[in-house]
Amino acid sequence: MRLAITGAAGFVGRAVVAHLAETRPDVELLLADRAFDTPPRFATLIGELSDPAMIRSLCDGADAVLHLAALPGGAAERNPQASRAINLDVPLTLIEAMEGRRLVIAGSIAVFGAGLPSLVDDATPPAPASVYGTHKRMVELAFADAVRRGAIAGMVLRLPGIVARPPSASGFGSAFLSDIFYAARTGAPYTIPVAPDATSWLMSARTCAANLVAAVLGKDCEREAVTLGALRVRIGDLVAELAKQGDVRRFEFAEDPAMRHMFGSYPLLMTPRADALGFRHDGSLAALVKGALARH
Amino acid sequence: MRLAITGAAGFVGRAVVAHLAETRPDVELLLADRAFDTPPRFATLIGELSDPAMIRSLCDGADAVLHLAALPGGAAERNPQASRAINLDVPLTLIEAMEGRRLVIAGSIAVFGAGLPSLVDDATPPAPASVYGTHKRMVELAFADAVRRGAIAGMVLRLPGIVARPPSASGFGSAFLSDIFYAARTGAPYTIPVAPDATSWLMSARTCAANLVAAVLGKDCEREAVTLGALRVRIGDLVAELAKQGDVRRFEFAEDPAMRHMFGSYPLLMTPRADALGFRHDGSLAALVKGALARH
Repeated sequence: MRLAITGAAGFVGRAVVAHLAETRPDVELLLADRAFDTPPRFATLIGELSDPAMIRSLCDGADAVLHLAALPGGAAERNPQASRAINLDVPLTLIEAMEGRRLVIAGSIAVFGAGLPSLVDDATPPAPASVYGTHKRMVELAFADAVRRGAIAGMVLRLPGIVARPPSASGFGSAFLSDIFYAARTGAPYTIPVAPDATSWLMSARTCAANLVAAVLGKDCEREAVTLGALRVRIGDLVAELAKQGDVRRFEFAEDPAMRHMFGSYPLLMTPRADALGFRHDGSLAALVKGALARH
Repeated sequence: MRLAITGAAGFVGRAVVAHLAETRPDVELLLADRAFDTPPRFATLIGELSDPAMIRSLCDGADAVLHLAALPGGAAERNPQASRAINLDVPLTLIEAMEGRRLVIAGSIAVFGAGLPSLVDDATPPAPASVYGTHKRMVELAFADAVRRGAIAGMVLRLPGIVARPPSASGFGSAFLSDIFYAARTGAPYTIPVAPDATSWLMSARTCAANLVAAVLGKDCEREAVTLGALRVRIGDLVAELAKQGDVRRFEFAEDPAMRHMFGSYPLLMTPRADALGFRHDGSLAALVKGALARH
């Protein structure tokens, strides 16, 4: 079994590789990214996925591809053409290149846009309100059509907010949801841009990695994108839990209405399809915080 | 006012040009297509829209673009990669190239897929079930996002079945809905692949042209694609009207379940948004048949 992973040097990618190294030493890995900070223990492919030769090398001999590489939401909004190249054209080319094989693509709850109904479930229609969410939704449609035609197997998994992304992973408007963990770890001062009653859907990177690995090494094939379950976290509750496991004495709240609207107003979430497929969230806020505070 | 039109040599394109020539001699036209059968009376641009230089020439100095060029549904299904190039990449590039100006794109009711609810209205969520419908829906999403960002003005107009396309316009699975008019005009034998109680949404090319011209020369800007109103026609009623205006004595019915499912099961249609924007359908079956039988 040969598995190629794009964005393998990224935050989620590293968690996926760590999970595979621990649990599935039988899987032969090919790790693709623009660069690797530390020399990986696996075969690597370094280059730009917008280069067709890179896609060919990636897919050559791969039984499955896990596509994680993306231009983050904030950067996509600033440069829609770059987002088209990275967040749209690359996955569309992967869908073509992996014809007859297995492909799992990291999608995003950004497809739902802002102004969500009071309950989101598997029937909620996507209504993207960002460049990033728009391109992610376009990829979902292309993937669904390829499954309909029998051209591809696998699925698109819509990821919730994954924590705690390193501070260097700039470009996500939702970065505060990760920064808060780093501040709590060191006791640094931190101004939270939403009020305590704001709510977000969160998942630790290790749980996210377990879900992605289960998807790409499994047999299920889903035409419609699968919204992963996630913990719906009140930011006030998160700070209370961080107070137990870290240091939040220098935290304060100063709500920015735009941030609240985009990243702090997530409603109830029900994901029976993901649950039936065996995907899971972190189970409890204590476990999520523990997982997110752990050093990888 | 300079207006560039893609697919100008096609069936709908010729009707649009004829309508503009009659009603808006003040508009300076640039007609783009791969080839023109008859020398047009207007400036032309001949080439492939997949060539970036062609897009640049098309948009250079244009106040507005009307984008009609497409790979038809049947051909798109046989060659998804060609559909991606023509039905997806070209309009995405036009959206970028026309930034700050006006663009109207011919969309399609194919975005609704098959298996429609008993009433389709402006709230019906698209669920494409073809390569063509998928790419049309992806373009709608990209257009909506460009409008959200203030990058483009105009709209995507979802066209119903336009009749009567010439027999040469192969590649549409729905071709029988046009062929039936040609057979009635000449009295040729014709086997209709759906039963008399099948229903379709139809519009004559001249009415379609009037709507497209109103859209591209108007000022309205619509983020969400606009479903045009259409006559919902029982095929049995259509044949009865064709008997009055043509010769259907050698017609017979032999229903193909797949054709019925795809092209003969259109439910009630309500389009208050299109109506409020001033778009119109043919008004009566007699008018539709008269318009569709007319020689252009």
